[in-house]
Amino acid sequence: MHDDESIDVIVSEVGPRDGLQNVKRAMPTATKIQWVTALAAAGLREIEVASFVPPKLLPQMADAEEVVRAASAIPGIKVLALAPNLRGAERAAAAGVATISMPVSASREHSQANLHMTPEEAVEQVRKVRQLCDSLASIHPVGLEVGISTAFGCSLQGLVPEDWVIELAVMVADAGAQSVGLSDTAGYANPAQVKRMFTQLRAELGDKAGAAHFHNTMGQGLANVVAALEAGVTTFDASQGGLGGCPYAPGASGNIVTEDLVFLLESMGLRTGIDIERLLAARTFIHEGLPGEHVYGHVAEAGLPKSFQYAREPQLAAS
Amino acid sequence: MHDDESIDVIVSEVGPRDGLQNVKRAMPTATKIQWVTALAAAGLREIEVASFVPPKLLPQMADAEEVVRAASAIPGIKVLALAPNLRGAERAAAAGVATISMPVSASREHSQANLHMTPEEAVEQVRKVRQLCDSLASIHPVGLEVGISTAFGCSLQGLVPEDWVIELAVMVADAGAQSVGLSDTAGYANPAQVKRMFTQLRAELGDKAGAAHFHNTMGQGLANVVAALEAGVTTFDASQGGLGGCPYAPGASGNIVTEDLVFLLESMGLRTGIDIERLLAARTFIHEGLPGEHVYGHVAEAGLPKSFQYAREPQLAAS
Repeated sequence: MHDDESIDVIVSEVGPRDGLQNVKRAMPTATKIQWVTALAAAGLREIEVASFVPPKLLPQMADAEEVVRAASAIPGIKVLALAPNLRGAERAAAAGVATISMPVSASREHSQANLHMTPEEAVEQVRKVRQLCDSLASIHPVGLEVGISTAFGCSLQGLVPEDWVIELAVMVADAGAQSVGLSDTAGYANPAQVKRMFTQLRAELGDKAGAAHFHNTMGQGLANVVAALEAGVTTFDASQGGLGGCPYAPGASGNIVTEDLVFLLESMGLRTGIDIERLLAARTFIHEGLPGEHVYGHVAEAGLPKSFQYAREPQLAAS
Repeated sequence: MHDDESIDVIVSEVGPRDGLQNVKRAMPTATKIQWVTALAAAGLREIEVASFVPPKLLPQMADAEEVVRAASAIPGIKVLALAPNLRGAERAAAAGVATISMPVSASREHSQANLHMTPEEAVEQVRKVRQLCDSLASIHPVGLEVGISTAFGCSLQGLVPEDWVIELAVMVADAGAQSVGLSDTAGYANPAQVKRMFTQLRAELGDKAGAAHFHNTMGQGLANVVAALEAGVTTFDASQGGLGGCPYAPGASGNIVTEDLVFLLESMGLRTGIDIERLLAARTFIHEGLPGEHVYGHVAEAGLPKSFQYAREPQLAAS
């Protein structure tokens, strides 16, 4: 799944995108860049730094170009940015992003609410962005990854049929995505479902089966990581401090907490390349850029256990 | 592992014991009894209701006899009480408890701090309590279960050798415990370790391999449940609202949250016999008996998802 032989699992930080776009206030651009720089210094290899959506819809992301440009100058990290459509992808590519991340929602209701498109129309956008990437290949190679939103259930339509999610993932891969992951947008997934669906995804897509993106709404995020590891997943999205959750419901609706995820993986003997102390130190920039914003996390609150040891030996992530 | 064919996994509520003994104030006796009654009404089959320790050490547990007597009158539940030694076990048996739960600590430092005994001396107490239970068998049968404390690491001595934990569990079973579980007293366990150690425990003890008792200090509690399920564990301790955590460190040091555990299991298709709405309603008595006490939980905060379904079909818990 990944080329870096010094790590077993990629932790992909999405706080600067998924976290910040769910906070009403905007973090100052300079602080965003300091934060991304600190995350990279802690050993994060992948960081999703911005979302290329119309600034009038998400003013928090109005500085997407500037953040992508600055992040792309940091050595050793893969810079991702989200683009919901061709227009966003053009902006992201022009800013020099390494990889474009596109959401395609399996829930028809969520797809309309979030993207103003049917899932089939979203697949067509993926195809167009593939053509864009191909046309740029000789000038500036740009990767294209897709996460299937609401893959495990939807807060609008409820159940989302598993067969349809997998069918959609295949359509997306056929349209030209290099990897297709499954996203638990609502935070409703359970470990049995996660193991079943990622196993099925891998059976259909092989090495194109992509990242697991879990939210912690129901507190099941890390339990779902254990199940996904067993299904062979080696890339996990997470957000520092669980940023993005509603400040009035602690722990609800944000991504899984990066620090707690790294602790889980390293404790299990899976190398992430991340220094937890330096990672915790990067929280400074959340506090600076969004004073008083709610962040949480068990590792941050309890500190590292006396018995904690980082993973040292290479290990096959998949069981 | 259990006789009730209508459920797959036993959720053993330890809030009235483990939770309350880690809260400085005492819950009024009448409220304790109302709380236990409400938990039973929600479908809990096992409730650890008290700890038979000297009242001067734990005044919160001074009413242990009265609580055990009242709880024992509730039909359909197995009433457990903790006893650290023969003296406590005698009091518990006299009060009519169904099952005595004894802690034996694998960490020598924790054993001295918590029980003022070496682990070997604690095993001798188990042997004496076994004799007590045998002598009472014709009058009032009393079960005897042991949890190996600090089985996954210790906040005092750090690492606890895994081989020693399993060796100690075998000694405890030989001394007459009907089941021997593993307790993550410090909350340091990780899923790889949990799967390895419960697999080893089962290999050594067969059907005497007992419950998993996880604390959520590092936020890994439910992730560890997933691993324990794979190792064939079918009884899990939990505390309503994660009661017992330090009020100054949200989420730290309390047991895993009963509501979130039941949600996990039922979502995975494993029947617990517990009604989550009625379980949530039982929190009333925590609020009444300990006004302002910190409780938490994702299910309580976020509500049940639109897509949630209770498990309906019998399922083998072990993989």
